[in-house]
Amino acid sequence: MKKVTKIILQEKDMPTSWYNILPDLPEPLPPLLHPGTQEPTILPPPLFPASLNEQEFSKERYIEIPEEIQEMYKMYRPTPLIRAFRLEQFLGTPAKIFYKYEGVSAAGSHKLNTAIAQAYYNKKAGVKRLATETGAGQWGSALALGCQFFGLECKVYMVKVSYNQKPYRRIMMETWGATVIPSPSTETNIGRQILEKDPNSPGSLGIAISEAVEDAFGRDDTCYSLGSVLNHVILHQTVIGLETKKQLEVADVEADILVGCVGGGSNFGGMAVPFMPAKMKGKKMQIIAVEPTACPSMTKGPLAWDYGDVAGMAPIAKMFTLGHTFIPSPSHAGGLRYHGMSPLVSHLHKLGFIEARAVDQKSTFESAIKFARTEGIIPAPEPSHAIKVVIDEALKCKESGEKKTIVLALSGHGHFDLGSYEQFLAGKLEADTYSEEKVKQALAELPKVKYAG
Amino acid sequence: MKKVTKIILQEKDMPTSWYNILPDLPEPLPPLLHPGTQEPTILPPPLFPASLNEQEFSKERYIEIPEEIQEMYKMYRPTPLIRAFRLEQFLGTPAKIFYKYEGVSAAGSHKLNTAIAQAYYNKKAGVKRLATETGAGQWGSALALGCQFFGLECKVYMVKVSYNQKPYRRIMMETWGATVIPSPSTETNIGRQILEKDPNSPGSLGIAISEAVEDAFGRDDTCYSLGSVLNHVILHQTVIGLETKKQLEVADVEADILVGCVGGGSNFGGMAVPFMPAKMKGKKMQIIAVEPTACPSMTKGPLAWDYGDVAGMAPIAKMFTLGHTFIPSPSHAGGLRYHGMSPLVSHLHKLGFIEARAVDQKSTFESAIKFARTEGIIPAPEPSHAIKVVIDEALKCKESGEKKTIVLALSGHGHFDLGSYEQFLAGKLEADTYSEEKVKQALAELPKVKYAG
Repeated sequence: MKKVTKIILQEKDMPTSWYNILPDLPEPLPPLLHPGTQEPTILPPPLFPASLNEQEFSKERYIEIPEEIQEMYKMYRPTPLIRAFRLEQFLGTPAKIFYKYEGVSAAGSHKLNTAIAQAYYNKKAGVKRLATETGAGQWGSALALGCQFFGLECKVYMVKVSYNQKPYRRIMMETWGATVIPSPSTETNIGRQILEKDPNSPGSLGIAISEAVEDAFGRDDTCYSLGSVLNHVILHQTVIGLETKKQLEVADVEADILVGCVGGGSNFGGMAVPFMPAKMKGKKMQIIAVEPTACPSMTKGPLAWDYGDVAGMAPIAKMFTLGHTFIPSPSHAGGLRYHGMSPLVSHLHKLGFIEARAVDQKSTFESAIKFARTEGIIPAPEPSHAIKVVIDEALKCKESGEKKTIVLALSGHGHFDLGSYEQFLAGKLEADTYSEEKVKQALAELPKVKYAG
Repeated sequence: MKKVTKIILQEKDMPTSWYNILPDLPEPLPPLLHPGTQEPTILPPPLFPASLNEQEFSKERYIEIPEEIQEMYKMYRPTPLIRAFRLEQFLGTPAKIFYKYEGVSAAGSHKLNTAIAQAYYNKKAGVKRLATETGAGQWGSALALGCQFFGLECKVYMVKVSYNQKPYRRIMMETWGATVIPSPSTETNIGRQILEKDPNSPGSLGIAISEAVEDAFGRDDTCYSLGSVLNHVILHQTVIGLETKKQLEVADVEADILVGCVGGGSNFGGMAVPFMPAKMKGKKMQIIAVEPTACPSMTKGPLAWDYGDVAGMAPIAKMFTLGHTFIPSPSHAGGLRYHGMSPLVSHLHKLGFIEARAVDQKSTFESAIKFARTEGIIPAPEPSHAIKVVIDEALKCKESGEKKTIVLALSGHGHFDLGSYEQFLAGKLEADTYSEEKVKQALAELPKVKYAG
């Protein structure tokens, strides 16, 4: 009998609804608070169409995926669930390792799942143009393609240092018709103010968010789009976990351990949330969120009320946070450098349904190389954090003789991150730095919130 | 009823044999001639294991794919056949357009199909190390991964100008464990001779081939590996066409037009050859090979005896050629810059079973952008030549109202070619140059062959 390597679904097996966990939570998710009044609030209405605001707080367990979005998903979905036979063999583990590979999307990561949905709902609401920010470029390129599919204009404020260092990501967005501008730019007040103080500012994600938000606030035809953190983003990403569940059924195995990396939380949430109903009913299963030691919001930060953005303009959310003014040291996993954690993922962690681990950059790249040399695919630095934990767990199984089934959320490929691989291979990867002192300072700047719920 | 976008096969539907067209040809393929004696010859025995030499001239119609190779293929095969609904809609054509996408392989192109096979047969023959050349890097990276899978060392001589301009391709090969060196190098006699004359030589594919061949001749543990042109390479690539045939059956359509780009001919041959038995029996079907106007071996060159390499060390083959000393002007489709054409593809063209067209670079990139903006995938410059012809044919259908089925061999993605897209988007793409005079000079240097067969 030949071994089956990939669990391949047909298009007819794709989920037709996203799964919304909010009504199933044993304790409700804390609200978002208005940054001014500190009273419960929805997302800022000028920035988001009403449909996405509804999804953000919906009490419906299943939200139908509109036909038009399903058609777009079919361009790359269902994505494969692949058995890592060669990695297992290399590790000598009795564990079964599977990975759900989202890198088959044209944008190269899971981000396209929500980019398509957000572009659709904005188009439907009569919006003509979306503004967003991007750091390393994964999100910006996904939104550029989503907008192109639905005939929306797309303006991307790209952190200047990335704009200069990652020209290929920029060209990708331009190939898909987006306008990309280095941030800080002279096109917004906040950008001009920053450039006046420091004409050579390298930019930051916080600044880029502020510019995109100002852009969207300033134009009637424009909304703002966010690639992670929020509930509606995780909702759209549940297609990952829903497909995976079905694929594991086909393979006739049950996941003992689910592993995904977390930055804002949308990749991890999209994989984990559909497995939560069983977990909440007591099913024995480890669900592990992996973050970088350079930005360890869940392993080192408190669960606290904090602003979603550096400038303190975004709603206040209850989340694990290192403080909205904390700026993590530069790293090769740009997608994991968010000061906080998605309120939903934070809540699930608080309730004890998921665990968190932090992994350093050197171990991450060592694991990435092992994966690339056995499985072929060169993983992005972000999911390589999760690969490290998968390998750790597989080696524990080798020790104990347990035949666990481990499932990895492999969110994207590293084709545009090869500069980081080069540094690692040359032994020139900088050590991670994490400053307790900086976090202490940032935590001192948490907003004083009186809301008692 | 929802539209099916992709024809997805299961692993059990994958071909278990490659199709060898040699015994089915109505007129036998002319032999290879020894460059010294001009007598029929096999491939140079020290450079290739006997198994590949046998495949090169085999009379067996089907050659079983060894189990170990099938297992490796499953890491990315079967590849999808995708219906280009959005491109059709954009063109307003009644034609059905399908594309067979080989870019899902970890190496990003079809090249991995033969890299895995060649690594396997070399390993089986006791070879420890493979030497090869690469231009743009598609072939080098595929062989690096194939060697990693089977535990062989891999040495890649990479044309120096590409080595400097395409660092990501180089890092990819190193990530997979290969040793990559800019050619001309000081590690071979030919490299040292060239550097002595011109220390700043940018290198060329011809020089890199000579270095890799010298390397392999000079070491008992090493063989040489070629990524296109030869019969056994096209044989391995027939998995593309065999899968496509089955997928078209599932979709319940018959191909009216097959289109692929040609450089050495392995991508095109791999798609076209399995459709040949029907075509040779008179089935009405256009099979179109698309080459660049900058290197138009089939549309402008004669069918003649010529050396396979610039130095005149390789066997002499009967092929459409611009002369082995012809060096095409630089272009963004490095994979299509070969002076000749695979003897097998040349023979099929001579027999009238395939037609050839040449496409210029500007139209190629215009077509690539249309494809990227409708279908999402950013195609490599090489298959973008074929996309131009697909669009031409689809527009003819629009004119005539014919509902033809057009099938495109989309051999790989353009993630490492975004520099070319940038030039195109900025209006800075150089015009193609093709010099009749240069070709005339090169054709004057064709070997005088007395062999009459």
